[in-house]
Amino acid sequence: MAYRFSSDVYRNRLDRARKLTADAGLDALVVSTGPDLRYLTGSRADTFERLTALVVPADAAPRLVVARLELASVRDSAVADLGVDVADWVDGEDPYALALDGLPAQARLAVCDTMPALHVVPIAAHGGGTPVLATEVLRELRMIKDASEIAVLRQAGAAIDRVHARMGEWLRPGRTERAVADDIRAAILAEGHTEAAFIIVGSGPHGADPHHEFSDRVIECDDIVVIDIGGPVDPGYNSDSTRTYCFGRPPADVAEAYDVLQTAQRSALEVIRPGITAEQVDAAARDLLREHGLADRFIHRTGHGIGLSVHEEPYIVSGNDITLRPGMAFSVEPGVYFDGRWGARIEDIVVVTDEGCETLNNRPHELTVL
Amino acid sequence: MAYRFSSDVYRNRLDRARKLTADAGLDALVVSTGPDLRYLTGSRADTFERLTALVVPADAAPRLVVARLELASVRDSAVADLGVDVADWVDGEDPYALALDGLPAQARLAVCDTMPALHVVPIAAHGGGTPVLATEVLRELRMIKDASEIAVLRQAGAAIDRVHARMGEWLRPGRTERAVADDIRAAILAEGHTEAAFIIVGSGPHGADPHHEFSDRVIECDDIVVIDIGGPVDPGYNSDSTRTYCFGRPPADVAEAYDVLQTAQRSALEVIRPGITAEQVDAAARDLLREHGLADRFIHRTGHGIGLSVHEEPYIVSGNDITLRPGMAFSVEPGVYFDGRWGARIEDIVVVTDEGCETLNNRPHELTVL
Repeated sequence: MAYRFSSDVYRNRLDRARKLTADAGLDALVVSTGPDLRYLTGSRADTFERLTALVVPADAAPRLVVARLELASVRDSAVADLGVDVADWVDGEDPYALALDGLPAQARLAVCDTMPALHVVPIAAHGGGTPVLATEVLRELRMIKDASEIAVLRQAGAAIDRVHARMGEWLRPGRTERAVADDIRAAILAEGHTEAAFIIVGSGPHGADPHHEFSDRVIECDDIVVIDIGGPVDPGYNSDSTRTYCFGRPPADVAEAYDVLQTAQRSALEVIRPGITAEQVDAAARDLLREHGLADRFIHRTGHGIGLSVHEEPYIVSGNDITLRPGMAFSVEPGVYFDGRWGARIEDIVVVTDEGCETLNNRPHELTVL
Repeated sequence: MAYRFSSDVYRNRLDRARKLTADAGLDALVVSTGPDLRYLTGSRADTFERLTALVVPADAAPRLVVARLELASVRDSAVADLGVDVADWVDGEDPYALALDGLPAQARLAVCDTMPALHVVPIAAHGGGTPVLATEVLRELRMIKDASEIAVLRQAGAAIDRVHARMGEWLRPGRTERAVADDIRAAILAEGHTEAAFIIVGSGPHGADPHHEFSDRVIECDDIVVIDIGGPVDPGYNSDSTRTYCFGRPPADVAEAYDVLQTAQRSALEVIRPGITAEQVDAAARDLLREHGLADRFIHRTGHGIGLSVHEEPYIVSGNDITLRPGMAFSVEPGVYFDGRWGARIEDIVVVTDEGCETLNNRPHELTVL
């Protein structure tokens, strides 16, 4: 798979983005580098203090503002095929005026959620006050994956499953979390990812911290170990899967809590279908844990959308009443955390189908004894 | 060197930040993850969609808002020693209300320049409209490096000089830019950096793109090769140095243009002293190139400040009339670019002293024949 889809895909996305911008009563969408820019143009450009921005007016041709010395960074995108005006600027010029040129004086703007305040603040000053988030406009587009996007997510899921399948090669007592992480990183790349975006090796007490990465701690024989790994495959869609491992028969209390966790994760998977809400999926896992006295051990949301970003909409969290629709892709990853002792998490990526969901990760869900 | 300074350093910085916030007539500074947070607390936390924010009110104790599952990420910072209230939140709660609790209803806020729009927009809504940039407040602090910061920058400069000194081990015709970059990456780490933040291997025509990274292009005997490399050394301060290489006697036109570039870079270094402006340094390099008909070949600013960020204030660019003061650290890196053929750049980091400047990179400035 190449680093981007064919230009037709982006032409269609840009057209739809323009229409949604107009429908939202906005004058323009302003998208700096990041996943929204890659979604709309295929560009992997990554700039910080020098503004690169795709401006999508509701009623005119889109324009890409880019520093002259960053022009090469957009050459491998679909921009040249999309009828986008490329307006370059050099250090010392005002890129914000260039970006908003031709728009109304008090333009109502939407900016992408990754745009740094460094650009948001001057854009607000040039336009009509604080912009809204482009997510409001792009959510519809990015959240519903089409067949080609799902195919890539499926490929990413299979790739990370192959890494988990090889875990016994690297994960064993006496090694440090860091040494294991190094081997996992190599395998993530070898199995087809372009980058190892994140690696969690949470052994023993470190497993109780959901966002622990890895450390120089030496793994012990009676550790429970949380392995949460993933990264992008071209053209940029991410894998993300967690399994929990141990090296012998787990203590009874661990086995018992893990069984409840496994049932909770399955319960959440089973309720997924078009028409139910994101928070109902969260509740399915949470209620099951609560019934078994483990509510306080589950200290994060049940999941997050995934695609060009590792974390994107829809978030599977209490308070999110968005209705699930076919093509939505997200993680289902309840966990239990016993501070200072151990933790466990089970995570699969799913895609909502017409009837239920397709699970893109298919390694066994049991506590895996290596 | 540890990953942070002693807590006293951060206590002092926080106190000064609070005073500057009050002096600026602001109600509070709101700093999400990134270099400003590391500057003020030593925290290397890195979150995106879950708000982590240090709130520094003008007239009350600072508060750190952090998701409960990210609490571990701030444990290795100085926060516990600084009298900072830690307010944690869980998915589904409103972290913005928590952050701004106790501040006036229409609070005048400053946000750090790395804060993503995802947080800027709701903070604007909870506070008194579009915030200003915290750079306005923190510039004074971050831009003037103290002796301990300069010591680390000096160490970083020496480390990247050692990598350049070894360039002949890896850079030769017949190898790909990528293979050379892999060796450079290993050397950057081996010489004491915690990360290889950026690696440019711009051979032949790729050297004409100032922001080319590296590719599968095979390096040829008559290539001119731009090598621009750097990364952080603990506690987080960056190196950044460029040298240009070739493999035999360069063509006369290349040698001639390179000589002009070398003189231009030296001219810029020579004008640096307290009291002149950033744009005067830029002009010193640019005017020299213009006199020799190379103005159009120099398509970027002359430099950027450096510290916890690779690019920070002061920017050495036309239009920036900030006056240089002792302790400012920045790059001096003019370049010449001949589209489709070759490019060259010479870059040193300097620190402004009472009399002039100290150059932190000290490899020969000539076009280095390997």
